Amino acid sequence: MEALVIHAPGDLRVEEFPTDELGPGQLRVRVRCGGICGSDLHYYQHGGFGTVRIQQPMVLGHEVAGVIEAVGEGVTAYAPGERIAVSPSRPCGLCRFCQEGLQNHCLDMRYYGSAMRNPHVQGAFRQQIVVDAYQAHRLADHLTDQEGAMAEPLSVALHGINRAGPLLGKKVLVTGCGPIGALAIIAARRAGAGHIVATDMGAHPLSKALKVGADEVVNIAEEPDGLARFAVDKGQFDVLFEASGNERALRGAFEVLRPRGIIVQLGLSGGEMTLPINAIVAKEFDLRGVFRFHQEFATAVELLNKRLVDVKPLISATVSYRDSARAFALAADRSQAMKVLLSFD
Amino acid sequence: MEALVIHAPGDLRVEEFPTDELGPGQLRVRVRCGGICGSDLHYYQHGGFGTVRIQQPMVLGHEVAGVIEAVGEGVTAYAPGERIAVSPSRPCGLCRFCQEGLQNHCLDMRYYGSAMRNPHVQGAFRQQIVVDAYQAHRLADHLTDQEGAMAEPLSVALHGINRAGPLLGKKVLVTGCGPIGALAIIAARRAGAGHIVATDMGAHPLSKALKVGADEVVNIAEEPDGLARFAVDKGQFDVLFEASGNERALRGAFEVLRPRGIIVQLGLSGGEMTLPINAIVAKEFDLRGVFRFHQEFATAVELLNKRLVDVKPLISATVSYRDSARAFALAADRSQAMKVLLSFD
Amino acid sequence: MEALVIHAPGDLRVEEFPTDELGPGQLRVRVRCGGICGSDLHYYQHGGFGTVRIQQPMVLGHEVAGVIEAVGEGVTAYAPGERIAVSPSRPCGLCRFCQEGLQNHCLDMRYYGSAMRNPHVQGAFRQQIVVDAYQAHRLADHLTDQEGAMAEPLSVALHGINRAGPLLGKKVLVTGCGPIGALAIIAARRAGAGHIVATDMGAHPLSKALKVGADEVVNIAEEPDGLARFAVDKGQFDVLFEASGNERALRGAFEVLRPRGIIVQLGLSGGEMTLPINAIVAKEFDLRGVFRFHQEFATAVELLNKRLVDVKPLISATVSYRDSARAFALAADRSQAMKVLLSFD
Amino acid sequence: MEALVIHAPGDLRVEEFPTDELGPGQLRVRVRCGGICGSDLHYYQHGGFGTVRIQQPMVLGHEVAGVIEAVGEGVTAYAPGERIAVSPSRPCGLCRFCQEGLQNHCLDMRYYGSAMRNPHVQGAFRQQIVVDAYQAHRLADHLTDQEGAMAEPLSVALHGINRAGPLLGKKVLVTGCGPIGALAIIAARRAGAGHIVATDMGAHPLSKALKVGADEVVNIAEEPDGLARFAVDKGQFDVLFEASGNERALRGAFEVLRPRGIIVQLGLSGGEMTLPINAIVAKEFDLRGVFRFHQEFATAVELLNKRLVDVKPLISATVSYRDSARAFALAADRSQAMKVLLSFD
Repeated sequence: MEALVIHAPGDLRVEEFPTDELGPGQLRVRVRCGGICGSDLHYYQHGGFGTVRIQQPMVLGHEVAGVIEAVGEGVTAYAPGERIAVSPSRPCGLCRFCQEGLQNHCLDMRYYGSAMRNPHVQGAFRQQIVVDAYQAHRLADHLTDQEGAMAEPLSVALHGINRAGPLLGKKVLVTGCGPIGALAIIAARRAGAGHIVATDMGAHPLSKALKVGADEVVNIAEEPDGLARFAVDKGQFDVLFEASGNERALRGAFEVLRPRGIIVQLGLSGGEMTLPINAIVAKEFDLRGVFRFHQEFATAVELLNKRLVDVKPLISATVSYRDSARAFALAADRSQAMKVLLSFD
Repeated sequence: MEALVIHAPGDLRVEEFPTDELGPGQLRVRVRCGGICGSDLHYYQHGGFGTVRIQQPMVLGHEVAGVIEAVGEGVTAYAPGERIAVSPSRPCGLCRFCQEGLQNHCLDMRYYGSAMRNPHVQGAFRQQIVVDAYQAHRLADHLTDQEGAMAEPLSVALHGINRAGPLLGKKVLVTGCGPIGALAIIAARRAGAGHIVATDMGAHPLSKALKVGADEVVNIAEEPDGLARFAVDKGQFDVLFEASGNERALRGAFEVLRPRGIIVQLGLSGGEMTLPINAIVAKEFDLRGVFRFHQEFATAVELLNKRLVDVKPLISATVSYRDSARAFALAADRSQAMKVLLSFD
Repeated sequence: MEALVIHAPGDLRVEEFPTDELGPGQLRVRVRCGGICGSDLHYYQHGGFGTVRIQQPMVLGHEVAGVIEAVGEGVTAYAPGERIAVSPSRPCGLCRFCQEGLQNHCLDMRYYGSAMRNPHVQGAFRQQIVVDAYQAHRLADHLTDQEGAMAEPLSVALHGINRAGPLLGKKVLVTGCGPIGALAIIAARRAGAGHIVATDMGAHPLSKALKVGADEVVNIAEEPDGLARFAVDKGQFDVLFEASGNERALRGAFEVLRPRGIIVQLGLSGGEMTLPINAIVAKEFDLRGVFRFHQEFATAVELLNKRLVDVKPLISATVSYRDSARAFALAADRSQAMKVLLSFD
Repeated sequence: MEALVIHAPGDLRVEEFPTDELGPGQLRVRVRCGGICGSDLHYYQHGGFGTVRIQQPMVLGHEVAGVIEAVGEGVTAYAPGERIAVSPSRPCGLCRFCQEGLQNHCLDMRYYGSAMRNPHVQGAFRQQIVVDAYQAHRLADHLTDQEGAMAEPLSVALHGINRAGPLLGKKVLVTGCGPIGALAIIAARRAGAGHIVATDMGAHPLSKALKVGADEVVNIAEEPDGLARFAVDKGQFDVLFEASGNERALRGAFEVLRPRGIIVQLGLSGGEMTLPINAIVAKEFDLRGVFRFHQEFATAVELLNKRLVDVKPLISATVSYRDSARAFALAADRSQAMKVLLSFD
């Protein structure tokens, strides 16, 4: 069985990799499709992000869908041949955070394809993987494998929505329209947002933002003051989803966010930001970090299965895992790609 | 100018009624369409509900849409000829509840067509009405007057959603699929509910419930145990919207509502209920009343304007206000009608 | 070793009872003191409450403090001779509610001295008990064993406070000043309540309510309209802690509770209540059940240890477990007793 | 009548100042005592803070207590001779934020002694002031004028507590033990905090922190790693009240704050901060600004009146307003002063 293994920045190899034995309560899954995430890109380009670095070869990938090949002892809810999305969130279930329902902060999390712990947790960009039954979420027939693989990044966006609190009728600003920003638009719309404005510096992501439900978009490279009319009466937006990781985007939004506005910071920006803490104080903003997800994976698949969200406009291309260099180059090109998926067939 | 005036149970007359003078900051509106609400029906059938009784002739109605005929001094945001929905919520702006953002509990509320205060507040079932500009909400061209008139009951449902807290991915039960229950389904879906089950005792409302977005419906007259499979593990539903006003519906739901489940009681049931307070305690339910709305009216019109909700399936008939007896009889017939609207043209 | 075993209503016997073997991670505790709870009284007087009945002999008791006699393998945090309060809350840690941080709704809870499951869970009114280390909470030297035993009912009150949301500066009404009502006063005061009014029908509990921090008390047997002045402007109280289990108390409070007021129903009243659901709707109350506790036990002991709460005024008497008939008779007499404790020395 | 007028940095003069005429619904108050706030100090030392600068002469001061000299037409709730604390928060009551209950974000706030708007709002460091009756809060006999003047900074701390959410049993860290930090300790304790640790770089403020209720203090100048043991399991503190305005204090706390910890930023630090946004994201912190207060003033006076908080340990000195240079120098000296008050007798 083959897997995509990162050895060093730029050194991503197709290698033989053993499949775990199928234990009780587990499923053996033939992986069919896997989405390239920003963190996969960071490992590929820089060998990590922030203080996290690859220390040993690691299989990348955590956004996958596939077909069940075999079920372990005691598994009755699933059968071979069923198509599933696989949740990469594997908390211990026993630590204080698991016992508080905060599984994404588990003290012993084994998230796929992460170099945060050592030895690293091997990822899911491989032809075959053995998973626990609780990680499996059945896909409706109308969904493609690609859409199934999108359940993971959609879960991140849904978790961001949950962190923001109720959105029904709210005015929402999304800064940064990469995959996570665009999925935040989809999720905010689904959660009842009244008006959604999205900003980015690129035409391609903004065109996608409109396609997935933004009411208006502003290209802040072309129109640096494009949000100015929202500054009236101390600011008009109720909630900001910051998905650019860009300090200027965040600071610029401070002018147009109303007092008591909620700022949801999505994604790891990799660095520090210098912020006008005075504005946070004077307008009593509420700046909330968002890290991964857990329960939201089931919601993501349910919304996809019921056609309550549509992620197809965000799928840019599907490339064979044997052609990973091309796939990763495309994934890094914001002028033409949103989400690039690898095919493992 | 003519209005629909209730004098006593069953005694609803078309009468001449004076139009208020147009003051500064006001709009004179030609009413085109008005929805018959459950409370209008109660005044018509019983002369009131609970302890509220009509003490003097009163114009009924509070769900109306129309066209601006003239604008008062200082009004620049609106122009004659524009189509609007009219919010009947007119709080004082000065009392302690207005100053807390709880306008629906205003100590001096003048809600249209309500006998709660004396002298009663005259309603909006009339050919012409003068309103304050803040009550006006512009309708998109694609909306009919009928849909515009639905903004009011939709606001009630949206307020119910706001009282329930975040619904994204939640399992929702709606008991009672009259207009308010059906609108709660629409609103819950819009707010991201994951699975919606609706119950009623009539085939017609249940068929409408399916049309507006319920995943499943149960006719509890035919299938009294139709919810039994949801009782597993102390109950599966996260939120109950109770819109039947029926004690049995509420009690029945206790079995299938999970611990810490939220019960949102919509609408005035007119009486008392005997409840197993033990179940509320042991499962730590949270029973929340819902009364009218205020800010939600703007949201209702925005969602309608943007086609983010569709209330058309709930519009059963439009009848001339001169034929009010037939309109009210139809509105009272759950076997064939959801919302019946009066035409004032 | 001896235990207090209930066989049938009125039939409470001192009997030999085996001590469990001391396993790894466990403590063997010499029980010194145990409080008689309302549920113990119900078992004694009526054989149960609501639908719960004793089906086989059961050791009563769940409010105990004692001294560690021996520690099991692997226990390093505790040593023989240390004085502790014992939490009776023993959730499974694995079910969906444990994984959500709602341990009090555990699907497999083994709460001491409860006939809710069959076979019943044996209680802690015995001379010796083996507990898991996580159940132990060290007592400060200045605390008596009696105060230590009060940690359990105090936890119930603290859980009620947590269910109510922030109380800082709030106007609080407590109806019913038995032990739980009185502890709710103590806990509400500690949580920053601005003004606390307590009602009861007995002079003795009201005198205790004043002693533990109520600003005012009203004997509603003598002054049925004693709360009338709080009805102004739709009601003055922000939060009601209902600890009487009395329908009239709850209904009477509806008049003086402000719109959006929060009603916290403490304790199992054993029956049904007929409630004016109209008032709950029109004033948008929020009626919340409260059932046991879990995390709050640690808080209870911490507040006691730091003298941040004082429960001594509520301790009415300590009686030998061999004299249980007298102890239970006294515990049932509201005219002279709040909390009666059994001594197991 | 004399007032303390700031003309330029370091140029603070005693000047004649006219008293407003007493209108209906107003009170004429003889000011007896006024606390020097950090913002008064900033005006005195630097002519302002952040982007706010004095543009014209302005009476300083907003923390005052005094005696009613005369009551205007229609005032029945107050009488001459009564001692009151005066709330400096004067919102318009009509703007969108007032109508949402967010008076501290009023679009037309006239806060005493503030150069945020132009012309500036004159302050309360004067012998006589005319106030609206709603600004007056009666002081209990046992309170000194000085304690009464402390109601204002206490309100800021209480507002910070309200922004933090429920504190009952929570582990709280306070960084910076100037007057606001120390008052946050008092308020957190009153709100039921379980354990409070305070840090500062000075011995004097830390000694005060202990006096007003901190369980432990750490002098981070002497013990830079003094919080290290709280870093276990991803951090032990639930809530951080940051009152130092110091970037290093905030960053240092990130290590010891648990995932989902709440950071309440108190006070205007005057500048920008460079923050590891990655940590905010990965631990899903919730960073909340706090700006002034409104409703909390009534709570502050109620808690003082009922001896539920004690601010006396924070009162360092009372100096005549004629000796303002000495008073302001003392107020700026953290090695010996917490709150310095001016006497206007």
